[in-house]
Amino acid sequence: MGWFTPDIKTMDDLFVHQLRDIYYAENQITKALRQMIAKATDQQLKAGFEKHLQETKVQIDRLEQVFKLHGVDIGGVSCPAIDGILTEANEIVGEVADKAVLDAALIAAAQAVEHYEISRYGTPIAWAKELGRNDCAILLAKNLDEEKATDQKLTTMAEGRVNRRAA
Amino acid sequence: MGWFTPDIKTMDDLFVHQLRDIYYAENQITKALRQMIAKATDQQLKAGFEKHLQETKVQIDRLEQVFKLHGVDIGGVSCPAIDGILTEANEIVGEVADKAVLDAALIAAAQAVEHYEISRYGTPIAWAKELGRNDCAILLAKNLDEEKATDQKLTTMAEGRVNRRAA
Repeated sequence: MGWFTPDIKTMDDLFVHQLRDIYYAENQITKALRQMIAKATDQQLKAGFEKHLQETKVQIDRLEQVFKLHGVDIGGVSCPAIDGILTEANEIVGEVADKAVLDAALIAAAQAVEHYEISRYGTPIAWAKELGRNDCAILLAKNLDEEKATDQKLTTMAEGRVNRRAA
Repeated sequence: MGWFTPDIKTMDDLFVHQLRDIYYAENQITKALRQMIAKATDQQLKAGFEKHLQETKVQIDRLEQVFKLHGVDIGGVSCPAIDGILTEANEIVGEVADKAVLDAALIAAAQAVEHYEISRYGTPIAWAKELGRNDCAILLAKNLDEEKATDQKLTTMAEGRVNRRAA
C-alpha cells in the first residue's frame, strides 16, 4: 500500500485499499512470471509457470469485476511488500548459475509470492463478508483457491524432483 | 536476500542463504511486533502479539542452533521482501485513525508477515532433508508449526470479533 493513498477511516476504505494492493500485486506478478518462465529449465516447472500466468490474467479480470460490483474505480496502489518479494526473487535468481539449483530457487521465490497472495486474499474475503458483499467474497475466494492450489503444486514439484536434482 | 551476498553455486549455498534471510526477517519482526503491541487496542490481540514476540525470540535461538549444527557463522542478509512487508504494514497502520479498523488492519499486516514466514520455513525444511540435515529440519519445523498456529489464531480472532467491531 503506497505513499499517496488516502486516509483510511472505515472498514470499507480498508477493504478497497486491500483490493488495490492485490490488484497492483497481480499485475506485477504477471511481469515476474514471464521472467520466471524464461529462466526455468525443468519443463514441468516452466509449464506450471505458464499455466499460472494464464490463471493470473483471469484473476485480474475477477478483481476488476469486484471493483465494479463494489462501485469503485479499477486501479492499484503501489505495494512495497510485493515489490520487495519480487526484488528478492530477482536478486537470488541472478546469483545462481547451476540450472538445477536455479529451478529450486525459482520454486522458493514463487512460493513466497503465492503465500503473500494467500494472505492478501484471505483478509478481504473475511472483510467482504462482514460488509455484506458476498458477491465480492465469492470472486475473491476463486482467486484464493487457485493460489493455494498453485502453492501445493510447487511443493509437490519441489519435493518430488527439483530439490533432488539440485542437492 | 541482499545486494552483497555471495554467488550461490550449490544447494548448500542456497540453504545457508535462506537461513540468513529468515534470520534477518525474524530479527526485524521482533522490532515490528513491539510497535504492533503498542498500537493494538483489542486486549486479546495485544496479548496475542506479546505471546508471539516471546515465541519469536525462541525461534531466533533455534535458528542460531541450526547455524551451529550446519557449521556456519550466525548472521543475516538484508531481505527486501520482509522490509517491504513491514514498510507496508507501517504505512497502512499510520493511515488508520479508528481503533477498531486499526485492529483489523494490524491483523491483516500480521498475517502477511506470518505467510511470508510460512513460505520461508517450508522451503529450507525441504532442502535440509535433501541435504541430509534432518537435525536442522526438525528445529526449523518447530518454527514453522508456530507460525502456522499464529496465523490460525489471527484468523480466529479476526473472524470471531475484530472484523465485526470494525465493520
